Amino acid sequence: MLLPEFSDILSAHELIKPYILRTPVLTSRSINFLMGCELFFKCENFQKVGAFKFRGASNAVFSLRDEAAILGVGTHSSGNHAAALALAAKIRGIEAHIVMPSNAPAVKKIAVAGYGAHITFCEPTLQSREETLKKITEDLGLTVIHPYNNFKVISGQGTAALELFEDCKELEIMMCPVGGGGLLAGTAIATKNLIPGCRVIAAEPRGADDAYRSFRDGYIHPSVQPLTIADGLLTSLGELNFAVIQQKVDDILTASEESIIAAMRMIWERMKIIIEPSSALPLAVIMENREKFAGHRIGIILSGGNVDLSNLPF
Amino acid sequence: MLLPEFSDILSAHELIKPYILRTPVLTSRSINFLMGCELFFKCENFQKVGAFKFRGASNAVFSLRDEAAILGVGTHSSGNHAAALALAAKIRGIEAHIVMPSNAPAVKKIAVAGYGAHITFCEPTLQSREETLKKITEDLGLTVIHPYNNFKVISGQGTAALELFEDCKELEIMMCPVGGGGLLAGTAIATKNLIPGCRVIAAEPRGADDAYRSFRDGYIHPSVQPLTIADGLLTSLGELNFAVIQQKVDDILTASEESIIAAMRMIWERMKIIIEPSSALPLAVIMENREKFAGHRIGIILSGGNVDLSNLPF
Repeated sequence: MLLPEFSDILSAHELIKPYILRTPVLTSRSINFLMGCELFFKCENFQKVGAFKFRGASNAVFSLRDEAAILGVGTHSSGNHAAALALAAKIRGIEAHIVMPSNAPAVKKIAVAGYGAHITFCEPTLQSREETLKKITEDLGLTVIHPYNNFKVISGQGTAALELFEDCKELEIMMCPVGGGGLLAGTAIATKNLIPGCRVIAAEPRGADDAYRSFRDGYIHPSVQPLTIADGLLTSLGELNFAVIQQKVDDILTASEESIIAAMRMIWERMKIIIEPSSALPLAVIMENREKFAGHRIGIILSGGNVDLSNLPF
Repeated sequence: MLLPEFSDILSAHELIKPYILRTPVLTSRSINFLMGCELFFKCENFQKVGAFKFRGASNAVFSLRDEAAILGVGTHSSGNHAAALALAAKIRGIEAHIVMPSNAPAVKKIAVAGYGAHITFCEPTLQSREETLKKITEDLGLTVIHPYNNFKVISGQGTAALELFEDCKELEIMMCPVGGGGLLAGTAIATKNLIPGCRVIAAEPRGADDAYRSFRDGYIHPSVQPLTIADGLLTSLGELNFAVIQQKVDDILTASEESIIAAMRMIWERMKIIIEPSSALPLAVIMENREKFAGHRIGIILSGGNVDLSNLPF
């Protein structure tokens, strides 16, 4: 199994730099005071399409050779990856085909269609999604871009941590949420190469703790009936992602739904920025484990800011 | 009546620079596309205490001579000015006395108390507020800092526009909301001095259009039973403020509650930042008058980001 290395992240950064936004790193005196540590938030909620996913999708799309690119790209997703792939394809001037379950929220359908992607609706089951995508792929010769279990996607996601280290020296701990593991794998590769002594700690909802159990047991537990507000973290780990995580990640900690909502609210109220629940996981884990983090300089990747304002947990 | 001049804004900026945050200017490609103009948002929602009010309060507090400062400052307010004055006084190491109506929201009481101010509760009437403040002021020898009808406060509020022009050249229109007129007067003085051809257009809720009517009729209409979600814009104009506005402001336009909420939601969703309803007024006015603003480079001061997340209009 060929795993991405640090040089792949550097190459990805060079390739996608013209297309991504250089997102800011924000700090909050009052949150630092309340938590007893120094937090540096990398604001991927300000990234294009509102999430770090645009980094990986851009790297995958712009890495394609012209012969393949001209046939288009495809994926099945109802989330940020679909919008990210659609926008990256639009910028490159190629077609994107997105398979979405028929019951996906209208707002997501509109967003993906707004980037000019072709949407094919299917039954809301994994089997139907995969079969529908397979058929379109074979018919059109598309390149399928998996949302996280993909070498180029992992390399692209690692560029967020790369930029965070450029802006912010001497971090002792690097944190991000874990769902499929694309962001975590990329972040871990970048971190351990730049500052080997910096600990990489992932954060996961206790109601969707398959990565925590996989990390503990040494094999991938599938995510079965996850129950959490953090709708970006429902998926099982990919194999590539898990292999990197086993090598490079120091720990995975979980947080309760109450802590996730409290952390999300703290960031909204104190920092005046909008983050999605998945982004709140690292702060939620710090809230539940104050002694472990006290006094440290900690980088946190805020994964995205796409929330339904009509359906907030406060 | 001695009105602030541009030199007063420059002096204010020198004085308060060590205490205020240099807030960023953000843009949004998608909002520009939707509105058909180029908007530059000065993010005072990221300012200390979450609002531009900290600029004026700081200028007033740090302008005091030691003999006066040592006796403390006072005001009656249940809003952002109370928190701003409390924090400015705390930084200078002097006492702040805030008169608040007994029915003020608990969250505001906690915020002001958190900055170490002395709070005196009174009946929720203007008469009770003024009498209570008068008594404390006479007893203690406080300097009263009015939230907007104050030379130093106006000069301090003008520093936001000053910074916006430093970051962003060739603006053709400058916009901000108008309540008591502190921000608008300061903004107009700065704008007309830096770029005389730049039009200053204020935005006001149609349900609280006393400034619009005052500007039209040439005398101050008091704000009677204002009805708007923009809770920072309920007050009547001050005399100092109105004198400046008559000289320097090009126009005041109003917006409906529907437009205010739509503009607020657009900024939350597209820019991933939290603004209070008052901050949404300029964009709401642009939404209702697209032709007037089409193709122009427009500076907008986002006045603040203090909202009750448990009571949102979406």
